[in-house]
Amino acid sequence: MSRLTWGMVGGGEGSQIGPAHRLGAQADGLFTLTAGALDVDPDRGREYARRLGVAADRAYGDWAEMLSAETRRDDQIDLVTVATPNSTHFEITKAFLEAGFNVLCEKPMTMTVEEGEDIVRIAEASGKVCAVNYCYSAYPMVRHMRAMVAAGDIGKIRVVVANFSHGHHADAADADTPRVRWRYDPDMAGASGQMADCGIHALHLASFITGDEVETLSADFASTISSRVLEDDAMVNFRTTGGIVGRLWTSTVAIGRQHGLDIQVYGETGGMRWASEQPNQVHYQRLGGRTEIIEKGEAGLSDEAQRLSRVPIAHPEGFPLAVANIYVDLASAIRGDASGDFPTPADGLRSMAAVHAAVASAKSKGEWVDARPPMFR
Amino acid sequence: MSRLTWGMVGGGEGSQIGPAHRLGAQADGLFTLTAGALDVDPDRGREYARRLGVAADRAYGDWAEMLSAETRRDDQIDLVTVATPNSTHFEITKAFLEAGFNVLCEKPMTMTVEEGEDIVRIAEASGKVCAVNYCYSAYPMVRHMRAMVAAGDIGKIRVVVANFSHGHHADAADADTPRVRWRYDPDMAGASGQMADCGIHALHLASFITGDEVETLSADFASTISSRVLEDDAMVNFRTTGGIVGRLWTSTVAIGRQHGLDIQVYGETGGMRWASEQPNQVHYQRLGGRTEIIEKGEAGLSDEAQRLSRVPIAHPEGFPLAVANIYVDLASAIRGDASGDFPTPADGLRSMAAVHAAVASAKSKGEWVDARPPMFR
Amino acid sequence: MSRLTWGMVGGGEGSQIGPAHRLGAQADGLFTLTAGALDVDPDRGREYARRLGVAADRAYGDWAEMLSAETRRDDQIDLVTVATPNSTHFEITKAFLEAGFNVLCEKPMTMTVEEGEDIVRIAEASGKVCAVNYCYSAYPMVRHMRAMVAAGDIGKIRVVVANFSHGHHADAADADTPRVRWRYDPDMAGASGQMADCGIHALHLASFITGDEVETLSADFASTISSRVLEDDAMVNFRTTGGIVGRLWTSTVAIGRQHGLDIQVYGETGGMRWASEQPNQVHYQRLGGRTEIIEKGEAGLSDEAQRLSRVPIAHPEGFPLAVANIYVDLASAIRGDASGDFPTPADGLRSMAAVHAAVASAKSKGEWVDARPPMFR
Amino acid sequence: MSRLTWGMVGGGEGSQIGPAHRLGAQADGLFTLTAGALDVDPDRGREYARRLGVAADRAYGDWAEMLSAETRRDDQIDLVTVATPNSTHFEITKAFLEAGFNVLCEKPMTMTVEEGEDIVRIAEASGKVCAVNYCYSAYPMVRHMRAMVAAGDIGKIRVVVANFSHGHHADAADADTPRVRWRYDPDMAGASGQMADCGIHALHLASFITGDEVETLSADFASTISSRVLEDDAMVNFRTTGGIVGRLWTSTVAIGRQHGLDIQVYGETGGMRWASEQPNQVHYQRLGGRTEIIEKGEAGLSDEAQRLSRVPIAHPEGFPLAVANIYVDLASAIRGDASGDFPTPADGLRSMAAVHAAVASAKSKGEWVDARPPMFR
Repeated sequence: MSRLTWGMVGGGEGSQIGPAHRLGAQADGLFTLTAGALDVDPDRGREYARRLGVAADRAYGDWAEMLSAETRRDDQIDLVTVATPNSTHFEITKAFLEAGFNVLCEKPMTMTVEEGEDIVRIAEASGKVCAVNYCYSAYPMVRHMRAMVAAGDIGKIRVVVANFSHGHHADAADADTPRVRWRYDPDMAGASGQMADCGIHALHLASFITGDEVETLSADFASTISSRVLEDDAMVNFRTTGGIVGRLWTSTVAIGRQHGLDIQVYGETGGMRWASEQPNQVHYQRLGGRTEIIEKGEAGLSDEAQRLSRVPIAHPEGFPLAVANIYVDLASAIRGDASGDFPTPADGLRSMAAVHAAVASAKSKGEWVDARPPMFR
Repeated sequence: MSRLTWGMVGGGEGSQIGPAHRLGAQADGLFTLTAGALDVDPDRGREYARRLGVAADRAYGDWAEMLSAETRRDDQIDLVTVATPNSTHFEITKAFLEAGFNVLCEKPMTMTVEEGEDIVRIAEASGKVCAVNYCYSAYPMVRHMRAMVAAGDIGKIRVVVANFSHGHHADAADADTPRVRWRYDPDMAGASGQMADCGIHALHLASFITGDEVETLSADFASTISSRVLEDDAMVNFRTTGGIVGRLWTSTVAIGRQHGLDIQVYGETGGMRWASEQPNQVHYQRLGGRTEIIEKGEAGLSDEAQRLSRVPIAHPEGFPLAVANIYVDLASAIRGDASGDFPTPADGLRSMAAVHAAVASAKSKGEWVDARPPMFR
Repeated sequence: MSRLTWGMVGGGEGSQIGPAHRLGAQADGLFTLTAGALDVDPDRGREYARRLGVAADRAYGDWAEMLSAETRRDDQIDLVTVATPNSTHFEITKAFLEAGFNVLCEKPMTMTVEEGEDIVRIAEASGKVCAVNYCYSAYPMVRHMRAMVAAGDIGKIRVVVANFSHGHHADAADADTPRVRWRYDPDMAGASGQMADCGIHALHLASFITGDEVETLSADFASTISSRVLEDDAMVNFRTTGGIVGRLWTSTVAIGRQHGLDIQVYGETGGMRWASEQPNQVHYQRLGGRTEIIEKGEAGLSDEAQRLSRVPIAHPEGFPLAVANIYVDLASAIRGDASGDFPTPADGLRSMAAVHAAVASAKSKGEWVDARPPMFR
Repeated sequence: MSRLTWGMVGGGEGSQIGPAHRLGAQADGLFTLTAGALDVDPDRGREYARRLGVAADRAYGDWAEMLSAETRRDDQIDLVTVATPNSTHFEITKAFLEAGFNVLCEKPMTMTVEEGEDIVRIAEASGKVCAVNYCYSAYPMVRHMRAMVAAGDIGKIRVVVANFSHGHHADAADADTPRVRWRYDPDMAGASGQMADCGIHALHLASFITGDEVETLSADFASTISSRVLEDDAMVNFRTTGGIVGRLWTSTVAIGRQHGLDIQVYGETGGMRWASEQPNQVHYQRLGGRTEIIEKGEAGLSDEAQRLSRVPIAHPEGFPLAVANIYVDLASAIRGDASGDFPTPADGLRSMAAVHAAVASAKSKGEWVDARPPMFR
């Protein structure tokens, strides 16, 4: 089976997420990096693309050039990944979709709910594959949790608790450095800081695993470093359409937490916990039973957990291979296999609706608001 | 130094908290169990007291008999512990205080804020020692966290996150058994279920360690088992007088959590975490540093952590010795040493004010309300 | 039921093990400290005993005075604990036993195998209760592991791995300080350093849990700090009478291990692990199953685990209450209840035989030697 | 920079190690799978190779055909990986090396010490790159431990403890299934079972991190399932040339251990621990300090740890990327960069010498024997 061709917009040298995409696309030998507009500096981008093995004529200076040139080729890339600064995701994703490309967009998919609804419509109209990189949902053990919920292993869900806290923006002396400042500046980051940056990963996991969507929410935001306009710590209470009680805490000032994305799901007959720093285990307890440690790779796991595991039990698989699982399912979808299972523009849109609902709620002192996108109400 | 004499009201055979009090009072040889009205059934209570070594004439049938008889003795007990059902704490504590006894009262100290203010006034007027059993605050490493905060080891505090979740009331089939039902029935439990039962421990820890008091709060309550009137899952956002952002989650339906009381404190220059299931360690990180594991018993700990540790590093000390630390400090106070350091009626009152504020907020869809007792505003 | 009277030899102010004995004897209200010869300095010993509540006429200057005076009293103490320097255990234990006292002796019970055999014979002849303080075997979860083995929960045992490593004597600059030096000096510590000091705890646990005794062993000793004559790191391979393969590592130079006493037991149909720093859990796996976390206090534990637990599940109990469990069973035995279950002089003797066998094996480059006491061959 | 071409011998469908090699070679876009003789069944091997994207004319039926055809090509593969059954490693590696190919050989490199010495000589004479897949040594945090030792962060090393235990061959009912049986049958597995299969990984780590080589050893082997000829549980004590005391336990019957490869290194001024199931952290303690958790990706790590990390701190990287690190360094070496850093035939030879020394020692009841290959004495 020949490899698919793949291009990147963004994700250049020094990018945090770029390497994860390249590892993810390449690890299983499914995609070959064939084109790229990797950097806001055209020359640096072209040079880096060539170093990564891209042919000179497909190492582009910017995304518009790439779009235009690839559109004209017969052997245009099978998939383009958009890993640019957040505020550009909408425009680039839209353009590539409209030109008939399959697209994987980094989160947040858009800055506004309206843009999100646009992408949903455009993607549907295009008939192309369009995904949003909620990669944590592609960990085998997260997929297994979803399968357990679907199989009724914990019964009807009562409560879901999802956190994403870290301490990497806790240094007040750092608050004005460019790497950090834009995140809390509405001109650059939009309506929300940490909720839009990290909270939506936790929220997506909550929906993904429970199979239910956020309906209403109440939020409490804080900017614990005074120079910040946007929130660096947020708590969101929510209810899903199915009546699940949700709790979501997210913070960037939690010194000592490195990557505190974790989720707890409590149902009528069992509970389970997963943490992204130890992604190969789930702690599970049946009502009245003991805590059991479910291991990636153990015998008898759900099909979807098995399908997305590559090495034997207790051989850890990490973040890049979770990203790789997104690419595995995209490859299937691109080849026409309808079983491809990946986060969609609808997920990206729901996140934006929840972010804007949280912003509105926080501004009105925690008033409960509708968190659904208008088009899904 | 001769031992102090001690009496118990409640805490009879089969009681959960009774053994912890006896271990706590006796472990250091400070108190001798000398009197008791241990059970709602007078005969069972007398018989059990005698089995525990109490002389027949001080094994009482009920608290009123005990109060009356001990009051008339020259060698009346130095301390009485009140470990009866919650709704009786106020009346019994009040009566013993007014009769001139030193009292340790189980939490919640009272059912209402007004009663709490009464106890504060009565205790003050009595000149006797009166304490409330927020025993988790007496773990050496919790004391050490307070000392670290006071020493500025994490700088000005920004965020405190305190949880107390467990899954021991998660079985809907169990919801009507007497052991469980009363907790969610306002006739027996008062205004609040899990918040009043467990949440206040977490809230007390937050105040204790940060050295700051809750000023306002917003709550979201849920009764996830439909037959319950009172909440079995609650989220409380709060702000302290000093501006700290607080998050508190408490639940009784978190299957798989055994005793999930834990606290995270994040300041400008460091963060730390402690969990009651592993009470002998604190995870600490300085801004820009690594996570360090601080161990009970290590060299150089704060005086108060050292004072309340009994066995060498990595020899775990558990819950009964945290309770014992309360008794250590009560013994000092009873002997007139002003350095005795224990939770006071003011703490008990503040908890009640916060519980009632949370109930009110939850009823008004999360409105932010004043959480301070009127007498402290 | 009236309290038993209790005396201590050794365990004075500043002693490491003294507090654990006092907590252990007193916590359950079973024993009252009534007599003591607590210190090698008679005045300091008397003064400290009085501070601990001992009457002046029973605060003795040395053990011989205590033995003589207590022997003459009608109300002589019900139990004496010997917690003096190791080399004096034999003489003091022997003297008290021969005078008709019940004795709890700290480990090691003796310095030689011959002395050990003497104590076994004397204890048996005396008809009194005599125990050796292998207190780790009194943790409820260790008792539960023994019960699981006896119930066949892991099948016939194949391999047991027991370690006891720490790093508290790793500082070469410290090697000549009195606190540390004697441990590695044959004139003071006898034939063995770390094996006799800590290794025997691990070895006792291995025998206790498996219900089997060491038959032969091969040892490798090292003195990693050059000024030391005796070993500070040792590995012992052994076989039990029942054919179990044993591995035991013990070290005092393992910087970063605080109290690394742990044990793994592997049978034909299951395995389990326990560590003394987290003593309230056992990790258990059935053949082909998942790791399950067994919690102290959970429903359905063995009778012996339940009997020795005092507070509910996930309320940790620590080292002092393991020592207390020894006292619980001694109190039963002293009162004539044959069900008292505690480490005996035979256990103390077996340890000494194993230590001397290990010393001999290490000297002959790991030759396999008989590890049984002559009287048990 | 164009990708290197790569071929595999072995590692076909259903192979445990095959996927790790493909992930490792491809993840960084360094190698393209270009040729393969993947299966002992020629047709299955050809078919699977084609499914993996290998051109039909380079999907070979067996290694001899592949060797012959690739040798004749101008564009012959840049690297061949040998991942066949153990007993064939020597012959195939030798043949490809002699024909001028660069080779990565799975462990064990050979079955005998003599063969190992042959490979060392042939590899040296060939001038080609030859490596052995001790992939655990390529985890960034293992590299970092080596760098810490070299930098003197723990001082002169006293003791190293390396374990590799699991329970995956613990089912006696399984002992005769083909998947398991060959491992304990000398006709198929050679002189050693678990020591040769897993123990050598632990031994390699010990040498790798300490920078020292095993000189002498004493072993204790057991076959805990009676039908087994070769050992399924082994303990090896050793001394390095530099005088380090070594302890190595390895087992296949440790039910509940999944992949218990871990290592502890104790020096004069510090100690550290690493476990392969949580490969992104090292627990480190300075003499007299606290345990610190060193995280992959934290600021200030050694160059070699940084070079081999791909995603930010607390984003776990797992086993496949450790294998990928071997390929990263092979790619450098193939391109002529002398800084390539990978396990060599000398390492493979030393393992074989140690295995055979352990077998000899175990047969002579633990006699200490020379563990060095004759050519390195």
